Amino acid sequence: MKIESVDLFYLSMPEVRDIADGSQDAIVIRVQAGEYVGWGECDASPLNCIASYVCPMSWSVCKPIRASVEGQRLDGPEDIHRIGDLVRENSMDILQTDHTLSGIDIALWDALGKRLNEPVYRLLGYDRAYPKTPYASLLFGDEPQETLYHARQVRDLGYRAAKFGWGPFGHGAPEIDAEHLHAAREGLGPEGILLVDAGTVWRDRVYEAAKRCEALQEVEATWLEEPFVSNAVEAYSALAPMLLPVGLAGGEGCHDVYMARRMIDEAGLAYIQIDAGRIGGITPAKEVADYAAPRGITYVNHTFTTHLALSASLQPFAGLAEHTICEYPVEPSEMSARLTSERILPDEEGQIHLPDAPGLGVEPDPETLREFLVDAEIRVGGQVLYRSPTI
Amino acid sequence: MKIESVDLFYLSMPEVRDIADGSQDAIVIRVQAGEYVGWGECDASPLNCIASYVCPMSWSVCKPIRASVEGQRLDGPEDIHRIGDLVRENSMDILQTDHTLSGIDIALWDALGKRLNEPVYRLLGYDRAYPKTPYASLLFGDEPQETLYHARQVRDLGYRAAKFGWGPFGHGAPEIDAEHLHAAREGLGPEGILLVDAGTVWRDRVYEAAKRCEALQEVEATWLEEPFVSNAVEAYSALAPMLLPVGLAGGEGCHDVYMARRMIDEAGLAYIQIDAGRIGGITPAKEVADYAAPRGITYVNHTFTTHLALSASLQPFAGLAEHTICEYPVEPSEMSARLTSERILPDEEGQIHLPDAPGLGVEPDPETLREFLVDAEIRVGGQVLYRSPTI
Repeated sequence: MKIESVDLFYLSMPEVRDIADGSQDAIVIRVQAGEYVGWGECDASPLNCIASYVCPMSWSVCKPIRASVEGQRLDGPEDIHRIGDLVRENSMDILQTDHTLSGIDIALWDALGKRLNEPVYRLLGYDRAYPKTPYASLLFGDEPQETLYHARQVRDLGYRAAKFGWGPFGHGAPEIDAEHLHAAREGLGPEGILLVDAGTVWRDRVYEAAKRCEALQEVEATWLEEPFVSNAVEAYSALAPMLLPVGLAGGEGCHDVYMARRMIDEAGLAYIQIDAGRIGGITPAKEVADYAAPRGITYVNHTFTTHLALSASLQPFAGLAEHTICEYPVEPSEMSARLTSERILPDEEGQIHLPDAPGLGVEPDPETLREFLVDAEIRVGGQVLYRSPTI
Repeated sequence: MKIESVDLFYLSMPEVRDIADGSQDAIVIRVQAGEYVGWGECDASPLNCIASYVCPMSWSVCKPIRASVEGQRLDGPEDIHRIGDLVRENSMDILQTDHTLSGIDIALWDALGKRLNEPVYRLLGYDRAYPKTPYASLLFGDEPQETLYHARQVRDLGYRAAKFGWGPFGHGAPEIDAEHLHAAREGLGPEGILLVDAGTVWRDRVYEAAKRCEALQEVEATWLEEPFVSNAVEAYSALAPMLLPVGLAGGEGCHDVYMARRMIDEAGLAYIQIDAGRIGGITPAKEVADYAAPRGITYVNHTFTTHLALSASLQPFAGLAEHTICEYPVEPSEMSARLTSERILPDEEGQIHLPDAPGLGVEPDPETLREFLVDAEIRVGGQVLYRSPTI
């Protein structure tokens, strides 16, 4: 079948606040291929994704992404690989490319799955999707008391694992961070899996991270995530041995397979966290899973937003039985919470399962798309290059 | 002084062709700081840079770049470092950030140099700017005869060095590439410095590059540039020993210091090529020069477009006396050729010298800006976020 059209929907909460919550806006992608409709989502700035999709050509390897997608054949997985290669080649000089390609690649897998009547994970070569243990992803409170309160809350909700991140963590004295860590442990109870996300707060300053190792060990955190920015591999590898037995986690900033492989090979990670909505889609995410598993690195999805993004991010490691932990959005914005009518909910054991349905198994709700759609327009040289599509 | 305003000028030739010529459009940046005006340029897609500068905030580290620039103090070099750090932190989740920051950083150095009445290279800590040997940057001809013709032409123009790249090279049989290489050598004469640019044609396929090593050695090429994409470090390091004594060159795709340092440490490069208009500006480019020099790697600018970009790209290694070779735009589009009224021209020995003038020493010509300005507008949620500025 042929890719007939690609539409980009820019969604947003009426007010976007200056907080560590990436679920306040969204860029949802609809691909029409033959008679099938595929949906995808980038975890990225909507306007930047739109610009890279429609921008005028600057030169032969600085073309708009649409030049390599619309009109292409889509008959099997090899076409998705081919289209991805074409996009990366023709749009090499647009930095935003990998983020935008992500949502398109996801939508192509969804459309292909629907056509072939298979869940995406089967098209990726997995026989089955194993259940995953979702961890609730939360922000540290402003005060340790608030962190304690939230930790108790997620425990009461039945989560076995919780991740605390951002907020004041890493910005003040190490003693205050330690108080937050102990509060989180207290709230989760001794059995709870406690994960900590530093949100790149120390950029590449190993000595700052080193001051928090002892408290992380005391509270028996399972991992410390993103103490540094994604490319600061030397800083990661310097910290890793100091942190043990706490594992080092990172990788959500990786926007191609090369970056992720380097993190796996050189950063001393125990966990590689990949967002299918950033790395270029399900295709490169699966490559990373294939690379990580035999090297003893646990693959974990990065997902903070919608259940469409969640399904996409789970597919690449669905068949890895030992890679059990998964990020699960717990407090998304109303818009992100309502994006899909189907939801991937924990069962009575608190485990989650990918839908056994063609494609991704979840779809945006047209009502939600309509309600949160942002009216946007880009004009260049008298021509309208983009105008918000109708649903 | 305070940064009062930042304007982005999108320029373009009336027709942009699907060829390996990145000089067909441009994004020029004007910064007003106190009573001084600084100019900069990104070597990047104009619409994408504009989008990242004005986009609505998505969350706390996905802010438009302007949020971290406008209204900031600019009194010394430390302010430019501070603003760059702020941009990278606040716009971390916008991939396009480094490209856009590049032109802003350059304009800030220009404005600061004017205020302190010093050329930028002196503000970077260099006592003087050493002359550089420009190489003419050309495309391979469609046929070897055409390559020969162009090689003779640049030799007649007085260039001691020339680089041939892109075009058919690497796409067909190795024998045809060899014919082009011999034609280039014949045209330049035995004394000419011959450089070859593969334009990432083999992505990360070492075996394809290996088939061309013998011909490159026969014609005594000084370097082979970008056989692979910038992140494919393993492929670079595998090729490097096969290529000797021909050197390996690369790095123009680096969009931060981490990537460049990795290329220096692990890719087996003899030459690291940095575009100040892509890596985030003069500030990170100078960091790369500082890192490369003591490691015996020769720093080379990447510049294919204007003399504004050329001045910016030369500043970071102006004071490195041994790093003599520099890229020099020879066949830019009419728009790029006319962007600045001052030009950096070879002297009677064929050497070029940075202007001994405050800032960058070259400025856009208002007439050219007006003539090639593209009318563009971005509206989101009923608000005009961008409209082409007046000059």
